[in-house]
Amino acid sequence: MAVVSLPEEHWVAALADVEGVEPVVWDMKDAPPRDDIAVVVPPYMGNPKRLARLAELPKLEAVQLVTAGFEHAVPYLPDGVALANGRGIHDTSTAELAVGLAIAAQRGIPQAVRAQEDGEWLRLAGMPSLADRHALIIGYGSIGVAIAKRLVAMEVSVTAVASRPRAGDDFVDSVHGIEELPTLLPEHEIVFLILPLTEQTHHLVDAQFLARMPRDSLLVNVARGGIVDTDALVEACAAGRVRAALDVTDPEPLPPEHPLWRTEGVLITPHVGGASTAFEPRALQLLRGQLARFAAGAPLRNVVVTGQR
Amino acid sequence: MAVVSLPEEHWVAALADVEGVEPVVWDMKDAPPRDDIAVVVPPYMGNPKRLARLAELPKLEAVQLVTAGFEHAVPYLPDGVALANGRGIHDTSTAELAVGLAIAAQRGIPQAVRAQEDGEWLRLAGMPSLADRHALIIGYGSIGVAIAKRLVAMEVSVTAVASRPRAGDDFVDSVHGIEELPTLLPEHEIVFLILPLTEQTHHLVDAQFLARMPRDSLLVNVARGGIVDTDALVEACAAGRVRAALDVTDPEPLPPEHPLWRTEGVLITPHVGGASTAFEPRALQLLRGQLARFAAGAPLRNVVVTGQR
Repeated sequence: MAVVSLPEEHWVAALADVEGVEPVVWDMKDAPPRDDIAVVVPPYMGNPKRLARLAELPKLEAVQLVTAGFEHAVPYLPDGVALANGRGIHDTSTAELAVGLAIAAQRGIPQAVRAQEDGEWLRLAGMPSLADRHALIIGYGSIGVAIAKRLVAMEVSVTAVASRPRAGDDFVDSVHGIEELPTLLPEHEIVFLILPLTEQTHHLVDAQFLARMPRDSLLVNVARGGIVDTDALVEACAAGRVRAALDVTDPEPLPPEHPLWRTEGVLITPHVGGASTAFEPRALQLLRGQLARFAAGAPLRNVVVTGQR
Repeated sequence: MAVVSLPEEHWVAALADVEGVEPVVWDMKDAPPRDDIAVVVPPYMGNPKRLARLAELPKLEAVQLVTAGFEHAVPYLPDGVALANGRGIHDTSTAELAVGLAIAAQRGIPQAVRAQEDGEWLRLAGMPSLADRHALIIGYGSIGVAIAKRLVAMEVSVTAVASRPRAGDDFVDSVHGIEELPTLLPEHEIVFLILPLTEQTHHLVDAQFLARMPRDSLLVNVARGGIVDTDALVEACAAGRVRAALDVTDPEPLPPEHPLWRTEGVLITPHVGGASTAFEPRALQLLRGQLARFAAGAPLRNVVVTGQR
């Protein structure tokens, strides 16, 4: 029996029937409950420092994350231990919020919410639909594809951009390389950001990027706040040139006095893209498959790196 | 050449190239510009009383509406004149808003908008996604189908209800008859209303209907306000039993002091389902086909009634 630690008691119950696996609960706050744990699933939103406890497990073979991001875990990964990420778990939840933010911003839902407080029946006819817009998805991993699928069903014309050009799929004719952005931006009225934050993508959306977006176009950020130069965005929105719908900000959480909160044309949700009820069933589905593979001696999916210390 | 009146100058320009048709502008406020008009396209949101001017046109053969509803025009329809409605024109715009309202209500966008005014980074994790919900679409005409298409792309399980049961389509296995509502309601967490307002459907959503909806479920109304008993809805929402996202209300416009505005769990947009930029290109596309058919002597589509006075 492979001993596997899970961060939630009810996950232990939900996965108790996986053959060849003995699940135990461990949120990594305290010392491990046993020393023969072979696979650790760390808590979803736990402090990364807790991962230092991985060193206390002599039989550890794999760490399975329930996040797509994995960089925070790499420094704690013992030699020879495989690290698998949660690619796919957040697609549904994040893509849904991205599309919801876009419809809300296009059709005037924030204005309606504010008018509702005053009991005011606004004149909102003729707002720009999401349908018929040309949308650019920057970052075309699994969440980007999930956004594209939803946009196509909504009669949006979709263009995808990734770090390197490649062939298309059911939703886009081809995937453009990021170097094409300067020519693509002026042709697209909505830009979705769903790329990883790296040294290369930090402040990708700067004053120059925003200046290339068409007048009144919409920036939707469901990636990481640091991809956008916040000061440049505040300036572009305050000038009425572009609008923004942001699930992530820089800094985050946004302090109460930050000007972004009250900039015209900006809609902010508090980083809840992945954190809906859609998360848990998809996390458990991935874990079920991974633990069955591990128990059967088959290679794990989504292995992003193996410890080399 | 068939003389056709259109309510907007730029529609005349957009349709000037349809063969065999001479478009003229007429918003029906004043007397007709000529007496040989054969087809009238009344204004989208004009006062129905203007339709009395149809009697001034001795050569009138057809009236083409750009709304799905047509009951308002029937009393003014001269003998032998065909009335065609705008079925399909509003599908995209209305379905998009319906889905946008549902995502907004599920994921907490109204709460985020209100928190934004105070610069407050809310804790909104764990909100119910639209994905994975069981949704009931009541009214399965062309807008209902458009809603179903979008919901299926969003990983929602969809059940359709119409006045009579019939076979399914790409999005639902079958269409249930409305008499099944009492057993269907308790199994569905989101109800979309997109059925016509008739004597039979007036106050379809009453206290009993609302009592059958599961706790915390969501009612989305993009049909007509009168389908819902507003007092019963205010009571059910105020008690925290159900939530509502309403593009239409009864009365409409909702007076500033009406309690519905400030009832917990209610999101209101000011009847803008069909009124986005998605409307005009689809209206012009329908008109183009209809006018070409008329000029060729072919029967019009969407004829709902012929005048019998």
